[in-house]
Amino acid sequence: MAQPIVDPPAIAEVPGLVAAAVYAEGRRIADIAIADARSWSRRPGHIVWIGLHEPPQAHLRQIQAQFDLHDLAIEDAGKAHQRPKLEQYGDGLFIVARTAQMLDGRIAFGETHIFVGEGYVVSVRHGPSTSYANVRRRCESSPSALSNGEDYILYAILDYVVDNYIPVLETIEGEVDAIEDGILNRSFNQKEVERSYQLRRDLLRLRNAIVPLAEVCRRLEHGDLPAIDPSLQPLFRDVTDHVRRVQEEIESLREVLAFAFEASLMTGQAQQTAITRKLASWAAILAVPTAIAGLYGMNFKHMPELEWEYGYYAVVGVIFMICGVLYWRFRRDHWL
Amino acid sequence: MAQPIVDPPAIAEVPGLVAAAVYAEGRRIADIAIADARSWSRRPGHIVWIGLHEPPQAHLRQIQAQFDLHDLAIEDAGKAHQRPKLEQYGDGLFIVARTAQMLDGRIAFGETHIFVGEGYVVSVRHGPSTSYANVRRRCESSPSALSNGEDYILYAILDYVVDNYIPVLETIEGEVDAIEDGILNRSFNQKEVERSYQLRRDLLRLRNAIVPLAEVCRRLEHGDLPAIDPSLQPLFRDVTDHVRRVQEEIESLREVLAFAFEASLMTGQAQQTAITRKLASWAAILAVPTAIAGLYGMNFKHMPELEWEYGYYAVVGVIFMICGVLYWRFRRDHWL
Amino acid sequence: MAQPIVDPPAIAEVPGLVAAAVYAEGRRIADIAIADARSWSRRPGHIVWIGLHEPPQAHLRQIQAQFDLHDLAIEDAGKAHQRPKLEQYGDGLFIVARTAQMLDGRIAFGETHIFVGEGYVVSVRHGPSTSYANVRRRCESSPSALSNGEDYILYAILDYVVDNYIPVLETIEGEVDAIEDGILNRSFNQKEVERSYQLRRDLLRLRNAIVPLAEVCRRLEHGDLPAIDPSLQPLFRDVTDHVRRVQEEIESLREVLAFAFEASLMTGQAQQTAITRKLASWAAILAVPTAIAGLYGMNFKHMPELEWEYGYYAVVGVIFMICGVLYWRFRRDHWL
Amino acid sequence: MAQPIVDPPAIAEVPGLVAAAVYAEGRRIADIAIADARSWSRRPGHIVWIGLHEPPQAHLRQIQAQFDLHDLAIEDAGKAHQRPKLEQYGDGLFIVARTAQMLDGRIAFGETHIFVGEGYVVSVRHGPSTSYANVRRRCESSPSALSNGEDYILYAILDYVVDNYIPVLETIEGEVDAIEDGILNRSFNQKEVERSYQLRRDLLRLRNAIVPLAEVCRRLEHGDLPAIDPSLQPLFRDVTDHVRRVQEEIESLREVLAFAFEASLMTGQAQQTAITRKLASWAAILAVPTAIAGLYGMNFKHMPELEWEYGYYAVVGVIFMICGVLYWRFRRDHWL
Amino acid sequence: MAQPIVDPPAIAEVPGLVAAAVYAEGRRIADIAIADARSWSRRPGHIVWIGLHEPPQAHLRQIQAQFDLHDLAIEDAGKAHQRPKLEQYGDGLFIVARTAQMLDGRIAFGETHIFVGEGYVVSVRHGPSTSYANVRRRCESSPSALSNGEDYILYAILDYVVDNYIPVLETIEGEVDAIEDGILNRSFNQKEVERSYQLRRDLLRLRNAIVPLAEVCRRLEHGDLPAIDPSLQPLFRDVTDHVRRVQEEIESLREVLAFAFEASLMTGQAQQTAITRKLASWAAILAVPTAIAGLYGMNFKHMPELEWEYGYYAVVGVIFMICGVLYWRFRRDHWL
Repeated sequence: MAQPIVDPPAIAEVPGLVAAAVYAEGRRIADIAIADARSWSRRPGHIVWIGLHEPPQAHLRQIQAQFDLHDLAIEDAGKAHQRPKLEQYGDGLFIVARTAQMLDGRIAFGETHIFVGEGYVVSVRHGPSTSYANVRRRCESSPSALSNGEDYILYAILDYVVDNYIPVLETIEGEVDAIEDGILNRSFNQKEVERSYQLRRDLLRLRNAIVPLAEVCRRLEHGDLPAIDPSLQPLFRDVTDHVRRVQEEIESLREVLAFAFEASLMTGQAQQTAITRKLASWAAILAVPTAIAGLYGMNFKHMPELEWEYGYYAVVGVIFMICGVLYWRFRRDHWL
Repeated sequence: MAQPIVDPPAIAEVPGLVAAAVYAEGRRIADIAIADARSWSRRPGHIVWIGLHEPPQAHLRQIQAQFDLHDLAIEDAGKAHQRPKLEQYGDGLFIVARTAQMLDGRIAFGETHIFVGEGYVVSVRHGPSTSYANVRRRCESSPSALSNGEDYILYAILDYVVDNYIPVLETIEGEVDAIEDGILNRSFNQKEVERSYQLRRDLLRLRNAIVPLAEVCRRLEHGDLPAIDPSLQPLFRDVTDHVRRVQEEIESLREVLAFAFEASLMTGQAQQTAITRKLASWAAILAVPTAIAGLYGMNFKHMPELEWEYGYYAVVGVIFMICGVLYWRFRRDHWL
Repeated sequence: MAQPIVDPPAIAEVPGLVAAAVYAEGRRIADIAIADARSWSRRPGHIVWIGLHEPPQAHLRQIQAQFDLHDLAIEDAGKAHQRPKLEQYGDGLFIVARTAQMLDGRIAFGETHIFVGEGYVVSVRHGPSTSYANVRRRCESSPSALSNGEDYILYAILDYVVDNYIPVLETIEGEVDAIEDGILNRSFNQKEVERSYQLRRDLLRLRNAIVPLAEVCRRLEHGDLPAIDPSLQPLFRDVTDHVRRVQEEIESLREVLAFAFEASLMTGQAQQTAITRKLASWAAILAVPTAIAGLYGMNFKHMPELEWEYGYYAVVGVIFMICGVLYWRFRRDHWL
Repeated sequence: MAQPIVDPPAIAEVPGLVAAAVYAEGRRIADIAIADARSWSRRPGHIVWIGLHEPPQAHLRQIQAQFDLHDLAIEDAGKAHQRPKLEQYGDGLFIVARTAQMLDGRIAFGETHIFVGEGYVVSVRHGPSTSYANVRRRCESSPSALSNGEDYILYAILDYVVDNYIPVLETIEGEVDAIEDGILNRSFNQKEVERSYQLRRDLLRLRNAIVPLAEVCRRLEHGDLPAIDPSLQPLFRDVTDHVRRVQEEIESLREVLAFAFEASLMTGQAQQTAITRKLASWAAILAVPTAIAGLYGMNFKHMPELEWEYGYYAVVGVIFMICGVLYWRFRRDHWL
Repeated sequence: MAQPIVDPPAIAEVPGLVAAAVYAEGRRIADIAIADARSWSRRPGHIVWIGLHEPPQAHLRQIQAQFDLHDLAIEDAGKAHQRPKLEQYGDGLFIVARTAQMLDGRIAFGETHIFVGEGYVVSVRHGPSTSYANVRRRCESSPSALSNGEDYILYAILDYVVDNYIPVLETIEGEVDAIEDGILNRSFNQKEVERSYQLRRDLLRLRNAIVPLAEVCRRLEHGDLPAIDPSLQPLFRDVTDHVRRVQEEIESLREVLAFAFEASLMTGQAQQTAITRKLASWAAILAVPTAIAGLYGMNFKHMPELEWEYGYYAVVGVIFMICGVLYWRFRRDHWL
């Protein structure tokens, strides 16, 4: 059923619209206007795939009208800060996922809302994240896979979302390793305390993003959702598996940071003890000349030692001897 | 089925009664006296909505008589300090929710008890909280939604209760951020210890309020409760979702405060170590002139250095040199 | 079916027997001897209610013979230190609850074992606790409620047991508040450490008593126990609810004490740091006159300053100046 | 069905064999050789009860042959360090339990493996533990109970195993109480740190032994195991209950030790602060005479005070006064 | 059905291929080329067992073609860093396990992927681990067991994987014991902090490897997996049991290290206190001669004591006496 390629409407003019195309037999047959989405999606074997980025409310309402989407889902899609979830409205699914990516060397958290139903997939991105143009390209390059339909597109997007967590975790892992190398020699310095605090907050955010996503994937894998073809369940199982690995890695990093904290506390305590010991040792050694010289600085008339010819040398000698013995004993006991 | 607007009875005269009205087809058709509630609620398509604030017991008994409410529920409704719960008595529901709002810049915890049954909704507020006049206004402004019946009113109240948690959390979040900025430079001071202690207690109370509410919402969403129309379940699912987000936020803030505590402990330890180091360094440097000068303050007859013309300058010079070397080494080792 | 009031047997003579009465239509119709219990309990509409306190084994065997109780239950009832539990033996129930009350201003833990079956309720108290005479009086004062039968009596006893936890918790709450007021100014002193340790142990014991009781109540509320009339389930639900509130309160107090511990640790650390700073500051200030005066105490022949007319004043002035500058800087840096 | 008492074979000659007897109607009718076990166990109403202690492998193989036991169970029974478990092989059960007893005042951990099947019970002990001769004696003294069959013997052994945990816990409880008395006065000394560390390890081992045993008992109580007569389930329920009490006690002791640790940390911190305060106070007081006397030890030509007749007394007086004021202030502030 | 031994193909030439053989009636009848695997595996009663080590992708594709393996499983098998899991593709199973072994005295983590289906077993090793040649040898030495089929081979491999964890844990246990002996005398030194930190990371990795493996084993034991013969379930139950024991041991070691950390913190605190006490004691003792000698070093004209004949001896005597008394009191109070 070959379709003539339709001229793309002027997408750039529509705010928030990233791409809108129709696919048949795994091939892109046309770029379309939103107003035509419904009719295209109703043709058998045709799938409309629309990508949006922080679209204005009016726009979402237009999409809603095309695919009869539920009011609550549209309200949710209009604003970020949703919890990852999967909701079923009639035959359609509404999925919320939190995304995390490395953008310019920093962790960028975003959100993606996906509507999936008979003949259509609509993705709505919020916050900083790369567009799903990559996903679209990859799908278009394997028509046989894409011909599986709208649930395959859903899989491709979720897989991309989860895969983007990996470099984030690798970055954090690198930083944790760096901190780790530090603490084994000395306790945390102020910069490391700050860095590890930041890492813990980041890991907390990542966990909050990924834990409910695991539940979403589990339901896609196991649930009897009308929009999901059972033959694609191994694909969703694979995503679930990736999510679990990410989750495990996050938990491990959290524990490692907790271990590092404890190790640093320990090292810090040992350090403090060592310094106090050193302080005490030197104070003891230096108190000797002060005390003895003090005695011979007294102005008593009758102090026979003061008259001795070598009294001075004797006293200095005694002082050095006592200090030497103390020094040797402190060394021996590893106080110095 | 248009109803003539009935003259409102003198509500202000009844202690604890905030509002009592009857609705049909989503429109307020009359303000009523409690004694008439039963007959109005029995008319098909009519809903009586009564709002009370800390009503006297006699009053509650009157309400009980009107709607055949269960003794235990009435007893509960008469006093605050209930746990959030949903109880089913015959066809009626009795719901307890804890409220939290920002009132005059402080967190105000309250309680709301709701009776819902065929043709009636009764809300009983305890403690400080804004009245549900806002909810009533909002409902009255969308008659089509309100015409869904008493379960829609229940939804509207619960939604309002949960939404009121958001600014509370935002306030706490702001304070946590402020504390956070502090600890990255130095350990907690007394005021911050106190503030973070208060925040933890507040978060504990919020959690105790919201966790059982999640269970209530979950049952409204999933349960086969006779009072709840299945078509409204997406609404209750939405409330559940909000509750979960609030819960997640509370847990995150709790963890962040725990991280901050640990970071502060660490910083405090480092600080203590730095001070001890500084103390030790200065003690060592200052011990030098004391010890050396002590020696030359001795009154021995035979101390050749004392006779030297430049002995004094030599000794002072040596003292300065030793102190200088010590100072330089302590600087190098970052003890000073 | 009015019964003539039978003369009470000499209860005081029977060790461990507190009360033994038979009720019909909610009214006490006779005080009875244990040997007559069986025949009374078999009369339709009659309930025998026996209260015991640490009865001798022989006594329990007599009771066992009257109501055909299970050997294991009787063995359990003969000794304290059981875990709260509900066990079903044939048509009868055996319930163990731990009690906690304020007796003479101290927490007194005890145990109550209850046998409930067709026509009889037997309660066996162990350890310090007030008798259930209050429960009996309250039941007797509302015959209509009491006429519900033996399961109502069970409810009344359990409700009393749970209600007695409330003042215990209030007492602990008061002490926690007192401790709390303390730590916000300074770290725990020895007495507070001891007190908070005791409170934690008490809360642990309370939790161990109440957590399995929640399970007992839940089973009474939900289980299909032959001895429990379904119409009384709202009553048991109410008890479950109270148990849960007690449990929540215990958990909250445990957390609050943990927070207080952490806050105190922090305050203690800050205190230690402040003292070390103060110590270091004064040590530095006081080292100045010692070091300088030491220099001018040296006995060198040639020390021109010593000859100056105002040398002494100059040196004292310099000392004061340096000390003043140090004092000012330490103040500025909040070390003093 | 009276059986003639058969002459016992020479048990002492068989390594690892503690006892082997056959019972009918609750009475021991013969001591038997292992080779005859099968035929005896097959006689209706007869039960063979064999007790072994660390038997050689050959021996176990002989037992296996008699009762057709599973290879894996025999392999397990041949070596210690199994996890407590219940396994069903055909109609037979294989149960592993860890034992803990006080032997010569020390905790001795051991293991018992039990094979139960139609007509036989075989117990295999590993490690230090008293033999089950006591259990056998007690069973033989109540033939009516023993006539319940092999599941009664299983109950008797498990009950004995669990009961042996009680004195172990009482011993630990005594030690925890002793430690507790200590920490309320001062922080842990080295011996107490060591002791509490040992107790925590012991409690960990006890928990590891008892937690899976709870699962074993629960299955014996609830499971539809062919070897267990339903009429004996109250007995196993009783064992489960004891196990739970032991478990609760272990958890409580673990928590108490954790509390004690925290309390000790606190006390230690307070102690450290008190010592630092004292040190600082005395350092300040003693610095006064040093500094002032230093000044008047200077050798300036022109120091008018030195000439005053009562200068010396004045200075000493001033020194004492300042020291006295400092002392009084430090006392007042509880630094001394 | 005796098979003629076929000449083995040149295995060494195939990169990543460790062994490829076909078995019938528990006996190895031929070494085969991968290209012949399919036909051999289809002969009734024949099992192909192929062992690979980090095979190139092309190779895996060849295997995939032979046994119709699922794309996703092959993709997973081509790269390490999978989570332990069991996945069912049609009648075949795909199992991922993480391995841990002691290689050259260090813990080596690896991964093994196993494909099991009608007539074939393919194992793919990643990372450092000994080959399964041992397993193969052991299987070949008991043909009757091996004749159970491909599920027996799966059992043999998993059993080997789990057994290899035991020496790893024993090594860690030895190190924990060594650390433990240390901390009971003094707090952790830097090397022990480092070592215990490493052990905690290792235990974390081991736990991450073994916890999901427990789930895999549990499904093999309980699941109705077509590839697993129910008669072999006791074998898999045995593996599950071993996994649980490993898991329990890991958890215990984790707890023990946490206890050791706390004990060390305590000891460290006590140490710090002891040092501060000692420092304070000596500072006090040494301040006495300094202060007193300072007084008699003053240059007042009128100081009668200076004239006394035995003044000097008296003062020195007094100094020694005061110091002696202080020393004795500090000793008595265990400060020295």
